[in-house]
Amino acid sequence: MNNNDENKISIKQIAKLSGVSPATVSRVINNNGRFSEKTRHHVMKVIKENNYGMNYIAKSLRMKKSFTIGVLVPDISNAFFSSIVLRMEKYLYSKGYSVIICNTDRDEQKELAYLRTLEGKMVDGLLVISGDQEFDPSVVQAQTLTVCIDRKPKNADNVVFISSDHYRGGLLATEVLIKKGCEKLGIIISHENLYSSRERLRGFKDALETYGLPYSVNKVIRVEDKETKPEAARLQILKSLRQGDLFDGVFAINDRLAFGAMKACREFGLKVPENVKIIGFDDDLLCTYSSPSLSSVKQDSDQLAKKACDLLLKLIHLEVLTSNERCQIIPINIVLRESV
Amino acid sequence: MNNNDENKISIKQIAKLSGVSPATVSRVINNNGRFSEKTRHHVMKVIKENNYGMNYIAKSLRMKKSFTIGVLVPDISNAFFSSIVLRMEKYLYSKGYSVIICNTDRDEQKELAYLRTLEGKMVDGLLVISGDQEFDPSVVQAQTLTVCIDRKPKNADNVVFISSDHYRGGLLATEVLIKKGCEKLGIIISHENLYSSRERLRGFKDALETYGLPYSVNKVIRVEDKETKPEAARLQILKSLRQGDLFDGVFAINDRLAFGAMKACREFGLKVPENVKIIGFDDDLLCTYSSPSLSSVKQDSDQLAKKACDLLLKLIHLEVLTSNERCQIIPINIVLRESV
Repeated sequence: MNNNDENKISIKQIAKLSGVSPATVSRVINNNGRFSEKTRHHVMKVIKENNYGMNYIAKSLRMKKSFTIGVLVPDISNAFFSSIVLRMEKYLYSKGYSVIICNTDRDEQKELAYLRTLEGKMVDGLLVISGDQEFDPSVVQAQTLTVCIDRKPKNADNVVFISSDHYRGGLLATEVLIKKGCEKLGIIISHENLYSSRERLRGFKDALETYGLPYSVNKVIRVEDKETKPEAARLQILKSLRQGDLFDGVFAINDRLAFGAMKACREFGLKVPENVKIIGFDDDLLCTYSSPSLSSVKQDSDQLAKKACDLLLKLIHLEVLTSNERCQIIPINIVLRESV
Repeated sequence: MNNNDENKISIKQIAKLSGVSPATVSRVINNNGRFSEKTRHHVMKVIKENNYGMNYIAKSLRMKKSFTIGVLVPDISNAFFSSIVLRMEKYLYSKGYSVIICNTDRDEQKELAYLRTLEGKMVDGLLVISGDQEFDPSVVQAQTLTVCIDRKPKNADNVVFISSDHYRGGLLATEVLIKKGCEKLGIIISHENLYSSRERLRGFKDALETYGLPYSVNKVIRVEDKETKPEAARLQILKSLRQGDLFDGVFAINDRLAFGAMKACREFGLKVPENVKIIGFDDDLLCTYSSPSLSSVKQDSDQLAKKACDLLLKLIHLEVLTSNERCQIIPINIVLRESV
């Protein structure tokens, strides 16, 4: 904001510019009492277009704010999700906000129920982490400010989107395996309707294409959506190995699946990394404690959490976001360890 | 409840027995409007003493209920806590309740702030998981129904307490090491002011005493409270080993510390389990995926979560709990793997 001089503009002045009474401006800002959708739209347009008196308005708003942010997360027992939620909570708390977390269990009905719950609790904004379908902004009240993390919104106009570069993660992980000499590559995948899973798979395919390796459907090992446990991956990999699908490189879409794959290879008499090289995704705390230690794609969860929170706070403070800000991709990097 | 015939008793009849108007009974039940604390106490006493019309009253209550339960958890990224929270959420959701989760970060001020937030959101009850001090019921509004999990309440009259048998867990884990021939035992511990940590340590000491092994303060390896990461345990164990504190058995108060200990031993040239036997606590998903696989004390998190929720629902439905119900210890068991 360059117009600092105007930051002290009063509700009266906004009222004058909007052609409504100061009381109406106040009701619109606080979203409290009677006014038409048309009036609301008009007053907010005046406020935003002129970038007027944001500090003052933010202060006014604050009087009616709950200082609570709602977080929707599909599975709080997933180490990556819980680390993101934890970072968000710490950061938002330091900014004066309480965070209430709801676990949607990847269940569409439950998600809707929790959206209603959070709206009923008068949250100032929503952070929506991952989820099976695109996020449909029409399921939340129009005034509910929302930032989607790792989940594409259906209509990018109303919702801000931020994500790690899952595509590049998949691409680079596969490239590492190829450069280390692997020629028969497999991918273990679960939750294929997740944006992040699809992007990682797309990266895997594109890397194969770039290096002229054939992409074989047989080499896509699917683990049931409800089962991201290492055990499910172990069984699927063992099944593939016994059917004669021999790999010399495996990209696992997350570390849990990679741990299962490592165990399956060991049980089948294959050595990691001598016979099979394995790389995971998420850089779980325990990657360094497995034997061999596991290479993995590391998301910048600090940046992801902080940026998502900052974007939501900007929305809450009625700041106008640029289109670049409304859709952000955070770079990833690769951590190489013994498993490759 | 044996007096099913009386379940249909009306508010009028309760009013008559209490000597107040039916409107007052309704206000007391719904906790809505003016009435003295004395009146509330008297009416609730009549309701409870006579075990009258619980279904009916529950139905009345429901009309003013939020059908929301608040969960306070110190660290949602802790695998054991998140698994308990997940189970609670699933179970309570199946009973028609939304669950909102708050992460207290082991910070007393934050905990108080979140208690205020949850009260402001009109939760029907609270589930308080772990935490550094005893839980002081005076910090919540008198009508806030609370169940403490793994955390002793200061005044057991108002708060229900449920916990795993951490003492027996520590005792049995240490006994396993002793029976496998260990004579120089160490314990790695963090968060010593937690009820669960203290109980596990007490079990360790008592096992040493039972088997006539000396308890040496040198063999208690402390990891900074804010650092439950395996890395912190690894460094502490390496430090101890380099100082000449040689162990042949290590009981780690949780699996993360155990993973760190395993790595430290390997780096110091000690083989697990040949030279050092190690046992952890919590039976993390990854215990079977480390090499060697890790023995661990397994808490019955299903039982713990379900019982805690059932107790809270009973409180919400104004059922009278027996003193045995108000304080419950859930048995643990030991899962033996390669590390011992």
